Amino acid sequence: MKRTTIAQLNANPAAFADKDVVVCGWTRSVRDMKNFGFVTLNDGSCFADLQVVMNVGEVDNYAQVAALGTGSAVCVHGVVALTPERPQPFELKAAKIVILGESAPDYPMQKKRATREFLRTQQHLRSRTNLFRAVFRVRSVAAFAIHQFFQERGFVYVTTPIITASDAEGAGEMFRVTTLDVDNPPRTPDGAVDWSQDFFGKATNLTVSGQLQAENFAMSFGDVYTFGPTFRAENSNTRRHAAEFWMIEPEMAFCDLEGDMDVAEAMLKHVIRRVMDACPDEMAMFNKFVDKGLAERLEHVASSDFARCTYTQAIEILTAAQAAGHKFEYPVSWGIDLQTEHERFLTEKHFQRPVFVTDYPREIKAFYMRANDDGKTVAAVDCLVPGIGEIIGGSQREERLDLLEARIHELGMDPEQYKFYLDLRRYGTCEHAGFGLGFERLVMYLTGIDNIRDVLPHPRTVGNADF
Amino acid sequence: MKRTTIAQLNANPAAFADKDVVVCGWTRSVRDMKNFGFVTLNDGSCFADLQVVMNVGEVDNYAQVAALGTGSAVCVHGVVALTPERPQPFELKAAKIVILGESAPDYPMQKKRATREFLRTQQHLRSRTNLFRAVFRVRSVAAFAIHQFFQERGFVYVTTPIITASDAEGAGEMFRVTTLDVDNPPRTPDGAVDWSQDFFGKATNLTVSGQLQAENFAMSFGDVYTFGPTFRAENSNTRRHAAEFWMIEPEMAFCDLEGDMDVAEAMLKHVIRRVMDACPDEMAMFNKFVDKGLAERLEHVASSDFARCTYTQAIEILTAAQAAGHKFEYPVSWGIDLQTEHERFLTEKHFQRPVFVTDYPREIKAFYMRANDDGKTVAAVDCLVPGIGEIIGGSQREERLDLLEARIHELGMDPEQYKFYLDLRRYGTCEHAGFGLGFERLVMYLTGIDNIRDVLPHPRTVGNADF
Repeated sequence: MKRTTIAQLNANPAAFADKDVVVCGWTRSVRDMKNFGFVTLNDGSCFADLQVVMNVGEVDNYAQVAALGTGSAVCVHGVVALTPERPQPFELKAAKIVILGESAPDYPMQKKRATREFLRTQQHLRSRTNLFRAVFRVRSVAAFAIHQFFQERGFVYVTTPIITASDAEGAGEMFRVTTLDVDNPPRTPDGAVDWSQDFFGKATNLTVSGQLQAENFAMSFGDVYTFGPTFRAENSNTRRHAAEFWMIEPEMAFCDLEGDMDVAEAMLKHVIRRVMDACPDEMAMFNKFVDKGLAERLEHVASSDFARCTYTQAIEILTAAQAAGHKFEYPVSWGIDLQTEHERFLTEKHFQRPVFVTDYPREIKAFYMRANDDGKTVAAVDCLVPGIGEIIGGSQREERLDLLEARIHELGMDPEQYKFYLDLRRYGTCEHAGFGLGFERLVMYLTGIDNIRDVLPHPRTVGNADF
Repeated sequence: MKRTTIAQLNANPAAFADKDVVVCGWTRSVRDMKNFGFVTLNDGSCFADLQVVMNVGEVDNYAQVAALGTGSAVCVHGVVALTPERPQPFELKAAKIVILGESAPDYPMQKKRATREFLRTQQHLRSRTNLFRAVFRVRSVAAFAIHQFFQERGFVYVTTPIITASDAEGAGEMFRVTTLDVDNPPRTPDGAVDWSQDFFGKATNLTVSGQLQAENFAMSFGDVYTFGPTFRAENSNTRRHAAEFWMIEPEMAFCDLEGDMDVAEAMLKHVIRRVMDACPDEMAMFNKFVDKGLAERLEHVASSDFARCTYTQAIEILTAAQAAGHKFEYPVSWGIDLQTEHERFLTEKHFQRPVFVTDYPREIKAFYMRANDDGKTVAAVDCLVPGIGEIIGGSQREERLDLLEARIHELGMDPEQYKFYLDLRRYGTCEHAGFGLGFERLVMYLTGIDNIRDVLPHPRTVGNADF
C-alpha cells in the first residue's frame, strides 16, 4: 500500500475520514498510558506532526512501540479519525505499526532544547528539529519562488562557470583550484610554479560572481539570470560571511538603473509573498520563537513602495543625524563606503522601509559600473532592508566601449583578460543593468535567523568544512 | 515608452494590431530596397525574428540604418500591422529607429554558416546564433521543469556543499581547493604539506556528488533533491565529459528501487513534455538541422512505458546477441561493467525504448548500495535511453548499519570519515533510494547535440577554462 504523507492528510482531512492509510515517519515522542498510547510522528512533508493513537489490544507490538526512543522510523497502518472536539482536527488510529529503525539511546536530538551552536556540530541531524526543518523548507520554497519569478517573466536561466581563470572584478580573495601536486609542483626553468601544466593549462580559481558571463547571455537573450554557488576566501569569521554561498544575478538588456530597481523590488516582494503563503506554520514559528517582529516587518516590506535616494542624499541624511547627536562608529562624509550602521539607520530609522541608494562615488565601486555625467559617481544601486542592511547590490553597466576601455587602463587591469567583455561593447552594445542577491542573506531575512551558518545545509566557513 | 518583446507580440499579434510599440533587439539582417527596406530583428525573447519594414520618407535616419551590419542593437518605434497574406502573420512598420550600438565590421557572427568548433572559440557571442539560442533556452526550460517536477511533489530542494573534505564515494579524480601558497606551502616538521594551515583547517576538494549529504536531509524531509554543479578532474577529452557539470540528485525515504524507478521515469517524461510544449520552434529546428529522428524519439519516450530488466537478464540478452553474430568491441560476460555499446544495444536494438537495468554485481558498484539477498548483486539501477546510453544512475541505499559498516571495512575506507553517514543508520534508519541525473546529458538528449561543450554556457574541459 502506497504511503500517504502528513501534508496530504493536512491538506484535506475530510477526504481521508475513516479511510485506511499508511503513514511513515519518525517518532518525535511516544507516550505510554498503559492500555493505550500516543505516538507523535513527523515525516518532513510539512511542519505539523501527526497524532497516532494506539491501543494495547489492537497493535500487537504495542510494548515495543511504547518503548521506542525519539527519532525512530516507523510505518503506521491505520484509519484516519476526524476529531473536531480535540486541539488537532484529526488523528490516526493505528491498526499496525511496523518498526523500521530504532533510534539508539544516545540520539543527539532528544526533545530537550539544544543550542544552535551544539546543533551546528550535528548538521546531519539538525534538520529533524522544528527550527531547522522550518529553515530549510523556507530556503527551498524561496529558491523555487526565485526561479518562478524570473521564468514567468521570460528570463533565461544561465549557469555560469564555477571554475574560472579570471578574477572577475577583483572582488575579494579567491580559492585556487588545481590538480597539481602541491607538495612538489612542476616548475618552469626559472623556478616558478608551472601553471601551464595544471588541468586547464593555466591557474584557475573558484568564481566570486557570474555577472560578467551573464552579460554575454543578456546580450543575446535580453533577460537572463544566474542562480548558483559563489565563493570568497576571506578570513572573516562573522555571522554574515560564509566561504561558499549562493547568489542570484539577473542581467537585463535595454534596461537602465530604474528598470533594475523595479525588477529587484518586484522580486523581493514576490519571494516574501510566496514564502508567507506556502509556509504559514514555519513563518508563525519564526515569528514566535526567533524574531518577534518578523511577520509585521515582512508584511510591511511586501506592501510598501521601496524608497529611493541617491548616495549624496543619504550622506546628507546621515550628516544631519550626526549633527543632531546620533553617534556613528564610522564618521560620515561624502566618499566613504556606507557601513552597516549607516545602512541600518537609513532603512530602519529614516525611511522605515526598504530603500534603494543609488549613484555611489566611482572610486568605491567596480570598474564595470556606468559613469554618470557628473564625473564623480556611477550608476550603482544598493538595496537596504530593515534588520539586515544591504541585501542587493547592482548597477547599470558601462556600455560605452571607449569609457570602459579607459577605466580598465586607469585601474591597471589587463585588457586582454577582458577581451570578451569588451567585445559585447564592440558588437551591438546597448544599455543594460543587473544586480546580485545573496541567497543566504535573503533566507536570513525571511526567517529572522541571525547567523549564516544556520541557513546553509552544510556551511563552509574559516576552519569548517565538515560533513 | 516601455519596450514590448517579440515573444509578447507573437503570443497574441491581434491584441497589438495597429498599436504603437517599441521593440528593442539585434539586427540579424538589413535589406535596402532603395525606397524601403527590411530589418530582421531578434531580441532573444523567443526563437522567431521580427520583420521590420521601413520607408525612406518615414524613418529619418534610413540611410544609417540601411548601412548597419549584422548584430547591431536598435530600438524600433512603430505600428504593428497584421499581414495575413504574407509568410509571417505580422510586421512592424517603423516610425523611428534608434541606433543603440553598431556592430563592428569584424563581427564574428556574420550570417554565414560557422562551424560549432569555431563557435566554441566565441562563447560570449555564440548564443546569438539560432542554434545556440535554442540550446540555451531549452537548457533553461529543462532546468525549471526539473524544479517544478520535484516542488510540485513536495520535494525539498537542498543545496549540498561544493567544497568538501571527503571524497564521497571515491568516484573519480578530484580538484584540490586551497588558499595555501602552492609555490611555497607551509610544512609540518617532517616536511609534508601542512594542510592544517589551509583555509578550512584541512585538505579540501570540489564535490563529485551531493548524494551522501542529500541523504542527511531525506532522513528528515522524506523527499529531497539537489540541483547543482559537480566536478571530475578526469583527463578524458571526449564528447561526453566535462570537468564541471550540473547534477540532479533526488533522495527519497521510505522508498525502494521500484519507487526510485517510478520517480525517474515520471521526471524524464515531465521534462520532455514540458520542453516540447514550451519550445516548439526550437525543437523543430533541432529536428530539422541537428538530429532528424529527434522529435519522433522524444515523443516515443514520453509516451512509452520504460522497460525494466535485471543486469543478469541484460547479460543474457547481450550474450545471445553475441552468439547470433553481433560484434561487440568489449566481450560480454557476467561481472563486466556495461559499456556504451552494450547499453545502446539494449535500449536501441533490443527493447527499442528506455530501459532500467537493475541489480548489478556488487563489485562494480559503490559501497552505499543495498546488498541483495543473493550475496552477489546490489539494488542498483541505470536508466539507458536510445541515442545516449546511460542517463541516470541510482540505487536503493544500504540502510542496515551492520552491513554498511562491514562493507566500509571490507573496502578499507575510513569509518571515521563516514560517521555522519553511519549515524543515519543508527538513529531511525529506513529504506531509502535515490538517483543522479547528469543535467548536460539530459540537455544533449533533448536537443540532439552530440558534444557536451555545446550545451554548457562556458564549458570547462581538459585545457579549457576560457571566458
